[in-house]
Amino acid sequence: MKRIESPQNALVKHWKKLVTNRKERDKSGEYIIEGFHLVEEALKNKEQIVQIIVREGVDLPLLWDIDEVTLVEVTQPIAKELAETETSQGIFAHCKQYQVEDADKLKWKKFLLVDAVQDPGNIGTMIRTADAAGLDAVVLGKGCADAYNPKTLRSAQGSHFHIPVVRGELAEWIEDLKENGVKVYGTALQEAVEYTAVETGNSFALIVGNEGSGIHPQLLGKTDQNVIIPIFGQAESLNVAVATGILLYQFVK
Amino acid sequence: MKRIESPQNALVKHWKKLVTNRKERDKSGEYIIEGFHLVEEALKNKEQIVQIIVREGVDLPLLWDIDEVTLVEVTQPIAKELAETETSQGIFAHCKQYQVEDADKLKWKKFLLVDAVQDPGNIGTMIRTADAAGLDAVVLGKGCADAYNPKTLRSAQGSHFHIPVVRGELAEWIEDLKENGVKVYGTALQEAVEYTAVETGNSFALIVGNEGSGIHPQLLGKTDQNVIIPIFGQAESLNVAVATGILLYQFVK
Repeated sequence: MKRIESPQNALVKHWKKLVTNRKERDKSGEYIIEGFHLVEEALKNKEQIVQIIVREGVDLPLLWDIDEVTLVEVTQPIAKELAETETSQGIFAHCKQYQVEDADKLKWKKFLLVDAVQDPGNIGTMIRTADAAGLDAVVLGKGCADAYNPKTLRSAQGSHFHIPVVRGELAEWIEDLKENGVKVYGTALQEAVEYTAVETGNSFALIVGNEGSGIHPQLLGKTDQNVIIPIFGQAESLNVAVATGILLYQFVK
Repeated sequence: MKRIESPQNALVKHWKKLVTNRKERDKSGEYIIEGFHLVEEALKNKEQIVQIIVREGVDLPLLWDIDEVTLVEVTQPIAKELAETETSQGIFAHCKQYQVEDADKLKWKKFLLVDAVQDPGNIGTMIRTADAAGLDAVVLGKGCADAYNPKTLRSAQGSHFHIPVVRGELAEWIEDLKENGVKVYGTALQEAVEYTAVETGNSFALIVGNEGSGIHPQLLGKTDQNVIIPIFGQAESLNVAVATGILLYQFVK
């Protein structure tokens, strides 16, 4: 196994930037995940792994199939620099971001479109929820937190490896979807029908929006139908990831 | 308006401990909220406010009814010590925790019981969701994050002022609820019926459990019925606050 001891090593510097810096992730199309659970999920599709990074003294599970995967051992201080939390498990994977292909897109039938959701924890939870609900893709529009932010990755619990997460211009996506016969639903507080009254069928796109201001009015005007979740108590609204869960589980029922 | 300039002032020290220290909150039965939105929510029931703390230079909205509310002005450095975020709005309220009375309990019909959910953001989001769904109370069992942790308060977005949040021994609560004819539902992965098959009627208690291990088996054995949310994709599970939203909105439908 290759071993790196110098924190000044160019690869270590690259990894560190991938953890902390969105521009580095965007430019390289790569990212870092941390922890046994996420690395195990990544191993289900080895092509996306550039290398696995192991802190000295950490044993890999015997059952892991790591044939043809590059392993790199690093010292404690290097592992600490990459770690998100103080209780780090000392195992990481350097991965390649999912690249969408046009042929894939044509097969998708169920979509979550996300407009300007800023909290990485919310984005991650929504990716996890879309995965659980059996959707085919998540499209992140302008103003969204990065799908490959370490907090997003942690909240998503490995769902990045189960469902395509792509970036896009939502106005264009909505037009394309409608042209292809996919009905597009927005979430709104006015001119909206109660979500339980909607019958989506086998193909739909749901748009959810920013934590404070909701979906941009220009997008909301392009949907086929806008839906609302009733509030029975005194809360002003629901958390956007919770609302996404309630709607998606209604739509796929 | 009273003004405090010394960070060594005993009240400032108490406030600071209320922000950072659960023991101080437990002992005093008090807590601190931050930001215009939460303070405005607190003002809807002034009895719970000990005092409002304002950073020098911050103007209170003219429409706020602050008759008979104690206001304290503090310096920038003191406000900074109390602030949770760097973009603090410089307004806080020192509040009293909700005290449950037995007479209240008898009126409640819809309950969320929470077993050992450790993340304050999850607890806060669940309080907000229970409020939105029109529940009557949230009961936090052993091992839960503190309802008055600043992160819990922020995620709950003021729902602490709309719905009673109490601490309790869940095993006792389950027995009392069942004696009073309230049907108790757990969430489980085995010996459970699909959640859409449940007809709860006007009165129910839902138990949700720890992020990793779910509800403690001893509690799960005491429920009337356990329910499961199907996973259609490859995610192992849903985030606990998202699952709570899906279940509560099904139950109150």
